[in-house]
Amino acid sequence: MWSISGPGPSPTDPPLRRGAGAAAAFVRVAEAVVADVRRGALRPGDRLPSTRALARRFEVSRNTIVAAYDELATQGWIVARGAAGTFVSGDLPDPAPRRGARAPAGVASRPGFALPEPPASPPAPLDAMTARYRLSLGVPDPRLFPTAALARAYRRALAAAPRRGALEYGPAHGAPALREAIAAMVRDTRAIPATAEHVLVTRGSQQALDLIARLIVGPGRTGRVVAVEELGYAPAWAALRHAGARLVAAPLDDAGLVADALPARLAAVYTTPHHQYPTTVVMSPARRLALLGRARADGLAIIEDDYDHEYHYDGRPVAPLAAADPGGHVLHVGTLSKVLAPGLRLGYVVAPTPVIDALARLRATVDRQGDHVLELAVAELIEDGELARHARRTRGVYLGRRDALLDALDRELRGVVEARAPAGGMTLWARVVDDVALPAWQARARARGVAIAIGRDLHLLGRARPYVRLGFARHDEAELRDAVRALRRALRG
Amino acid sequence: MWSISGPGPSPTDPPLRRGAGAAAAFVRVAEAVVADVRRGALRPGDRLPSTRALARRFEVSRNTIVAAYDELATQGWIVARGAAGTFVSGDLPDPAPRRGARAPAGVASRPGFALPEPPASPPAPLDAMTARYRLSLGVPDPRLFPTAALARAYRRALAAAPRRGALEYGPAHGAPALREAIAAMVRDTRAIPATAEHVLVTRGSQQALDLIARLIVGPGRTGRVVAVEELGYAPAWAALRHAGARLVAAPLDDAGLVADALPARLAAVYTTPHHQYPTTVVMSPARRLALLGRARADGLAIIEDDYDHEYHYDGRPVAPLAAADPGGHVLHVGTLSKVLAPGLRLGYVVAPTPVIDALARLRATVDRQGDHVLELAVAELIEDGELARHARRTRGVYLGRRDALLDALDRELRGVVEARAPAGGMTLWARVVDDVALPAWQARARARGVAIAIGRDLHLLGRARPYVRLGFARHDEAELRDAVRALRRALRG
Repeated sequence: MWSISGPGPSPTDPPLRRGAGAAAAFVRVAEAVVADVRRGALRPGDRLPSTRALARRFEVSRNTIVAAYDELATQGWIVARGAAGTFVSGDLPDPAPRRGARAPAGVASRPGFALPEPPASPPAPLDAMTARYRLSLGVPDPRLFPTAALARAYRRALAAAPRRGALEYGPAHGAPALREAIAAMVRDTRAIPATAEHVLVTRGSQQALDLIARLIVGPGRTGRVVAVEELGYAPAWAALRHAGARLVAAPLDDAGLVADALPARLAAVYTTPHHQYPTTVVMSPARRLALLGRARADGLAIIEDDYDHEYHYDGRPVAPLAAADPGGHVLHVGTLSKVLAPGLRLGYVVAPTPVIDALARLRATVDRQGDHVLELAVAELIEDGELARHARRTRGVYLGRRDALLDALDRELRGVVEARAPAGGMTLWARVVDDVALPAWQARARARGVAIAIGRDLHLLGRARPYVRLGFARHDEAELRDAVRALRRALRG
Repeated sequence: MWSISGPGPSPTDPPLRRGAGAAAAFVRVAEAVVADVRRGALRPGDRLPSTRALARRFEVSRNTIVAAYDELATQGWIVARGAAGTFVSGDLPDPAPRRGARAPAGVASRPGFALPEPPASPPAPLDAMTARYRLSLGVPDPRLFPTAALARAYRRALAAAPRRGALEYGPAHGAPALREAIAAMVRDTRAIPATAEHVLVTRGSQQALDLIARLIVGPGRTGRVVAVEELGYAPAWAALRHAGARLVAAPLDDAGLVADALPARLAAVYTTPHHQYPTTVVMSPARRLALLGRARADGLAIIEDDYDHEYHYDGRPVAPLAAADPGGHVLHVGTLSKVLAPGLRLGYVVAPTPVIDALARLRATVDRQGDHVLELAVAELIEDGELARHARRTRGVYLGRRDALLDALDRELRGVVEARAPAGGMTLWARVVDDVALPAWQARARARGVAIAIGRDLHLLGRARPYVRLGFARHDEAELRDAVRALRRALRG
């Protein structure tokens, strides 16, 4: 650090002028003055060199020194007294100068204003992110991601962006080409008779859920009751709670959500009918009718989170609630996180147009709009069939991995874990014998590098359930076998 | 459409099996039954063909027909009576069959649940988006965007993504490499002594403002008062209002926000001190001190929106409030929308770590995280100096455009519009003589393809102010001259 009071820069000092912005130079000069004051080389009342003299000494423009002195005066370190000169202030911002090395100023370690109480946070998936075997999440294998196809599509989208306005502010609803492509996709594969005006593109299903929560609950409607399946997806509950919803748990059985057990006073129901998260059960046709009937009777909103529709292995696909919803009760949430990657953050809502428009108005205040360059690129992947091909290819791979995991569980953990093949999705829901203490097994497994999710983690009220959720898409068959062996060893400790 | 009651598919019918998913086939069969019922070819109580017979007729698997019949039964069109067979329901979902062509079902036109009142929405910038000359916004020229550099960086980031976890769920705070790069950037160019832990990467400054609003106001703190400059940025006000804040207007003058005129009871202040939006005034050192002093005295939060720091033309840069904030009052909001493009949606907050962590927790419920592939790509652009080079190049271009606009205004509108050169930014704030009715001029200008912003559009309480805001970065010098000539012609009507 250069000394103001000393002879000037030594040969070992880094050059003041760095070529990357004059701002850096004025900062360094100011820091040098502060350093001298802190170590006592300059004391309150001492006169500073003139700006001309200092500029000559450090071989910078006088403007740089003037800027430094202005900054120091603003911060209260020095005082300009006109023709008399510039002096170290008698009333320093930091009255106890530190001896020795220059203390880095740094951003304050604590805020100067009151923060709200941190909310009860759901278990962070990041702990799973550092595990060698991440069986606690139903996520796709990034090694299968079509990187070349997306890179090419992105490059083309960028090249076309100036012409198509994709780099500028655009509609909060999403890039029109992607709204069209998603509408076509849900018409073809989900039997939902949507057109582009029924589609909002979001940053993953999480943003969709957050916007829907704010719309349905929101200011002035705080305290409205939303029913959720007693076992479910914690980030959705978090979005609902943050919007002020009161959540009540609805029971589940082999046919899915028990619609007759829904409480009397409700604003909405959040459900995952295609492959119930986490039990993987497919909601039966009778339950679907009952739920839609209840919605019709009470003017409810149904938030249908169809998060992994593409991955259905049983021959007979099931149309979503939104496919037969003349009453307009269903907000159908989808995502490209499973078929592409969670990191891209692309999801969507399909709903009546007034709902889409209301969500888009809210979205505009949240983050204005999506990344329309990426949206154009993904629209191209959908239009040229690349997404469908990729879904088909990975469906076959994941089906094989599902069976490999079932096989490994049967070989290594028979009598401990009982798993049935799920009709679809990327996870199993397996019953564990009662004499295995799940939290302890989970911790020992994590210590051996295997992250699993247990019933309690997924229950709205944190109640223990003798089940584990095991994802099979993220890892290949050899990795899955290795992970299951580690689970077996972890039974003992 | 194939007829169930007729002889079977004709040669002109498209093949039932499309090869792109069995779901499509069962949907088509179900639609065919509905069509027949709607046009009266099948009537309530009529017996349907057996699943085997229909499968043979349409040359599909029996499972496909079974799936179609299940779906129709779920929707209430048909009733299965065991051995007796399957019959058209006596109680149809749509009791008035439509004659003629099959009516497309479509998503419902209105929701079946109550939507909240739409909030008073700020004037949408989209109207400007369709104008030939968009002088109402301070946005960069997308034709200058470094598309090749970003495309290359994105391709590399995608290739590295599986290895770096960028395609998977990651930290809500942002990709570590971009947090580091932004910290270095604000240290070097804004004199803010931040490290990566003081940085949150957001989807543009809008998301930063929305998260900050929810943190500072939020549930349980609704009604807290936030002071804003009386002329300012409406999307920021919208985020604050949506979080439940009560906004009060603070006066402005030639030195910026009049800190002494702030009301007594405040939670926070939202300010744009570097180039006041929209007056372009640079907040004086004395006002900065006064504002920080007030924050210290009352434990306030200061939301410093430094949205175009890179574009300063006056030789002497001014350090932000956050550069001298030992008390931790400042939440410094930045964006890459000006130096790169608004469409990329990349912004950031610099603040004490407990604040950043609290914002990240909120962010996780909003959209989980950013697009870490894009964040890695942009981190590379910052690290290899491309962003700084691009900022420097465009600074020169926009300085030229600033002067071209001033020149054109002087030539075409002298005596009507008086503009002074702003010290920085992408817009002018020009006084208009009192005998020009601004709303009418704005409308006539828009009819001639020129979008401008007038004082009233930018005032918190909608009060008229005899000023216009004119952006000069978006268009080149010839376009600016053309736009100003159109403005002159629009004076008359």
